[in-house]
This record gives sequence, C-alpha cells and structure tokens, in this order.
Amino acid sequence: MTGPPPLVLISHPMLGPMQAPLEAQGLKVAKGWELAEADKGRVQAIVHAGEIALTPEFLGSLPKLGLIANVSVGYDGVDVAWCRARGIEVTHAKGLNADDVADHALGLLIGAWRNIAAGDRIVRQGTGWRDADRMKPQPSLKGRKVGIVGLGAIGEAVARRVEAMGMSVAWWGPNAKPAAGWPRAASLLELARDSDILVVAARAEASNRGLISAEVIEAVGPQGMIVNVARGSLIDEDALVAALKAGRLGRAGLDVFAQEPTPAARWAEVPNTVLTPHTAGGTTDSIPRMVAQAVENVRLFLGGEPVMSPATA
Amino acid sequence: MTGPPPLVLISHPMLGPMQAPLEAQGLKVAKGWELAEADKGRVQAIVHAGEIALTPEFLGSLPKLGLIANVSVGYDGVDVAWCRARGIEVTHAKGLNADDVADHALGLLIGAWRNIAAGDRIVRQGTGWRDADRMKPQPSLKGRKVGIVGLGAIGEAVARRVEAMGMSVAWWGPNAKPAAGWPRAASLLELARDSDILVVAARAEASNRGLISAEVIEAVGPQGMIVNVARGSLIDEDALVAALKAGRLGRAGLDVFAQEPTPAARWAEVPNTVLTPHTAGGTTDSIPRMVAQAVENVRLFLGGEPVMSPATA
Repeated sequence: MTGPPPLVLISHPMLGPMQAPLEAQGLKVAKGWELAEADKGRVQAIVHAGEIALTPEFLGSLPKLGLIANVSVGYDGVDVAWCRARGIEVTHAKGLNADDVADHALGLLIGAWRNIAAGDRIVRQGTGWRDADRMKPQPSLKGRKVGIVGLGAIGEAVARRVEAMGMSVAWWGPNAKPAAGWPRAASLLELARDSDILVVAARAEASNRGLISAEVIEAVGPQGMIVNVARGSLIDEDALVAALKAGRLGRAGLDVFAQEPTPAARWAEVPNTVLTPHTAGGTTDSIPRMVAQAVENVRLFLGGEPVMSPATA
Repeated sequence: MTGPPPLVLISHPMLGPMQAPLEAQGLKVAKGWELAEADKGRVQAIVHAGEIALTPEFLGSLPKLGLIANVSVGYDGVDVAWCRARGIEVTHAKGLNADDVADHALGLLIGAWRNIAAGDRIVRQGTGWRDADRMKPQPSLKGRKVGIVGLGAIGEAVARRVEAMGMSVAWWGPNAKPAAGWPRAASLLELARDSDILVVAARAEASNRGLISAEVIEAVGPQGMIVNVARGSLIDEDALVAALKAGRLGRAGLDVFAQEPTPAARWAEVPNTVLTPHTAGGTTDSIPRMVAQAVENVRLFLGGEPVMSPATA
C-alpha cells in the first residue's frame, strides 16, 4: 500500500507557468503561497527562482524535502550549505542562458556608453536633438579596457563579445583559473583601477554582498562605467547612486537591483544610466531550456536518480 | 603681387567647431550662411557635412571652388559627378569612424531586440515591472541571421561583431566582392527574406533612395528587425512606420531619418523601436580624426598636392 503521492511545490507566483510542464510529467503540484499545513509532509521537491529567499523556518517545516530545483542560474536566496547538511540537494540552470545574459550586458554597455537610451528619450521628446548636455560625445569603445568580475560562463561570453569590438579584457574572481584566456587582476580594486568598464557577472552569495564597494566604484571613476547583470546585492547600491550623482562614477547599466522592482524615484536624479527590469536572461530560447532542466531534475530526483547541475555550496 | 588670400567656407553652423583648426593652419575662414556676395570669388574650398544638400546653384556661384572636403563619411548631399565635371574634387572621411558606427548599430540591434530602451522606460515609470505586453521575451540573438546591406568598412565591422555573438552573416550590395568573408545574397529581396535582422550600412546616393522598399520591409517580416545607421533616404520611411504599426515588421533601430531632426509625433504610436539622433559616428576619438583629415585635405589642395580619400562618383 502506497501513501498519497509526493508533492512538488512551486515557490512563487512568478513560477506559475511551471505548473503545466510538471503536471505533464504526472507530478502533483502545490503552490507555496497557498500550501495547506496538512500537505507540508508530502512536499519532496521545490521548483524555485533562486533570487527569492527560502528561509530555514519554511524549509524546516517540510520534513520530506529533498530537492530545491532552481529554474534560475543564481540561487542567492538559498543557503546551499544549510540545505546539504540536511540532505536537501540544490540544482540550478548553470550556463543555460549565458549567451543571452552576455548579449543583454553588451546592450547595457553600449546603450549607456553611447547614449542610446538617452538619445531615444531625446528623439521621443522632440526637443534638443543632440542636446549638448545630454548627448556629449563619448570615447570610442574600441580600445577601452573591460574588467569582468566573475569569469564564469556569462563572464566568458561577455569577454568574447567585447574583444570582437576591439576592447581588451581582464578579470578578477576569488579563484585562479589557469585555463582562462584572459589575465586575472591581483585584486578587485586593481581590476577596477585598470578598467574603463567593469562588468559584474559573479555568482551572488552571502559572502560577497556589497563586493562592489564605494572604494571599487570610485576606482572605476568619473570616466568609467559599471554594468551589472548578476545580482543587485553584489553592489553597494547607495554608494553607486551617490557616486553617479556626484560624478565620481561616469555611467552605469543595471539589470538587477538591491530591491526588485526597484523604486523609480531612486533613479530619477541619477544621470547616465540604463536600467532594465531583470530581463537579461529571459529569452524564448533560454526559458524553455531552464524550465525543462528543472522539471527533469524533479523527475530524476523522485525516481532516485542523480540530478543535473548541482549548486556550489 | 598676390591678390587677397583664398577663403575656406564652412557650409553649416553645425560645423562651427571647424573654424579653429582651419585658422590654426593659417587659413582664412568664411561662413556659408553669412557669406558676402563680394567674397564668393575667393572661395576655393568648402568644409562640409555630406548629409546636407549643396545645390548646383550655390556651387555654381563660387567660380574658384576646387574642393568640397566632407568631414562626414556620407556625402549624399553632394553630386560628385556634377562636381568632378566642373573640376571640383570631393573628399570624405571614409572608414574613419567605422568601428564607432558599428558599435552604435550593435547597440540599436540589442537595444531593440532585447527591449532595453523599453525596459529603461518601464523602470523609470515605476509601473509594470516586466509588463507582459511591453516586455515580451524575445528569441535569443544567438543563432539569428543578420543581413547586411552594403558591405563597406561599417558593414564588415558589424559582421565581425554579430558573428562573435553567434549570429550568422550574409550581405547584399550592388557590386560583388570576391574577397568578402561572407556570402552575398542573389538580391536585396532574397537577403531580406532570409534575414531575421537587416542592418542598413550602404552609402546613400541618388540611385538608391527608398532602396529598403515596402516589399523589402515586409520580407524581413513580423518577427524581424531593421537597423539603419546609414541614411534615412535609403528606407521608405512611410512604409516602415506603417509596417511597424501594423505588425508587418517586428522591430526597428534607427539612427538616421528621412528628415532630421525627425518629428517626435511621427514615432509616438510606433511600437518596438529604438531611435537615436544621428549620433552613431560621433565619438571623441573619431571626430578629431575626421576633422583633422578634412583640414589636411584643404591644406593639401591649396598647396597643389593630391588630396586623401576622394569620394566615389
């Protein structure tokens, strides 16, 4: 005699579209935001968006939980070490949207450096075509020095793209990568000092909150630019806003923010920025790949087989 | 005994900054928009922005004119054959800002395809973060087919960039280029049919006005995109606007327009577009190169030496 079937939890309403592909595998799906107390004992897997916090309190209330399958690449909302210590595996969409995120990073980079979003606003306002204050010519991108923070799949995809545009590449990350095709700076601060453009592509975790500090931001400097396609937590965003307002940092292109949605008022008086609503990784090609891998990991786990793409603790 | 010194004419107020570098060469400068009738006989060279029309009437009133030195790459406002027939040489800034224009084209391409300018507006409005209607996910750029109209220095620079992003490249132009590294389509219409993204980088001339016709635009199609960094005259802009409004063309990124400044009202109801005020080629690196070459050409001409970078008739 078998008990009631295991439940797969969808953790957040934004993952609602996961229900159909999970059910297509014959799985029973429950919604985290309306989970009955009586069903908690049946939850064996969670399908999750890794930027959202899963608290130990909540996870601890699910005694049969064995898998958190992140549909996302990042999993900064999940304490992997805590999970592993309790026998809960964590997976993520490693590398599945690296080209898309790198394309978006390049769009932010060119868009902010070459006044493309600003130019679009000016054309649509119908005043000040080539307004000298808002459309000041910039140096060529060719010949600029790009520093990449975090040389994973996304960082490497950014590096290949900017090299094709005649920019040079260096990088920094906590671990040496002898096989990397680009030089690693001695420190993040040295990378920032030596870069015209700093692209943040590192995995966010508790240990690197505010990694891009006021000191790093000001080392990039008044003529420099910071692009962030990783996580808002990696940058001291108050320091970033202050530096942009005061001209101690030249420009920024941001897809991720300390708080999402980011309040519009926070950016009203911040010059030379391009801001997108965390859309770097979401294409009609990458989303189905990420969804399929998460569903497959749930299926593998419930069938007692090894899962794909485990997270790094 | 020598007569009064020759005059170098600056044709338009936007070229006002040319005055200082010309005078630094010991040249006498006059302004086309306030030229005294009595001085017309002294004008031997014009420094010009090639997108502005120089009429035969005006040129014919300058009996000593021998050179039109375009500071720009394009010279669609100058009838080169007419000039040459009258002994007037025409030069331009061939290739001097190709990388900058290609960078800008890439910024328009990514910006329009990946909703970067639209996302920036949404974040700043503070409503509809990831608004499903305005922020519909797009296919990956990787794997898309790019068709380049006009494989000159700019077209080749675009080709190298989009290849680094995993896109494929084909091109069309009126003349075969056996040394080109990419396949030439049998016709413009075939290129448009086979492309997800059509990038217009051709030299504008009287013979190719409206080259990108309604038929070509609709061959690019509802999922496709057109980027123009060449000249507005190359596209049937009324047809482009109508196709975008009706969804017969998916997207557009435009730096150049039929009329410049383009009226803002023309674009108010046109979806999925990124518009910049003819800024693709203007960087602090390329502008001085273009200025220096124009000045040098004036100096060479007045000294009786051969000029650099003559225009193609």
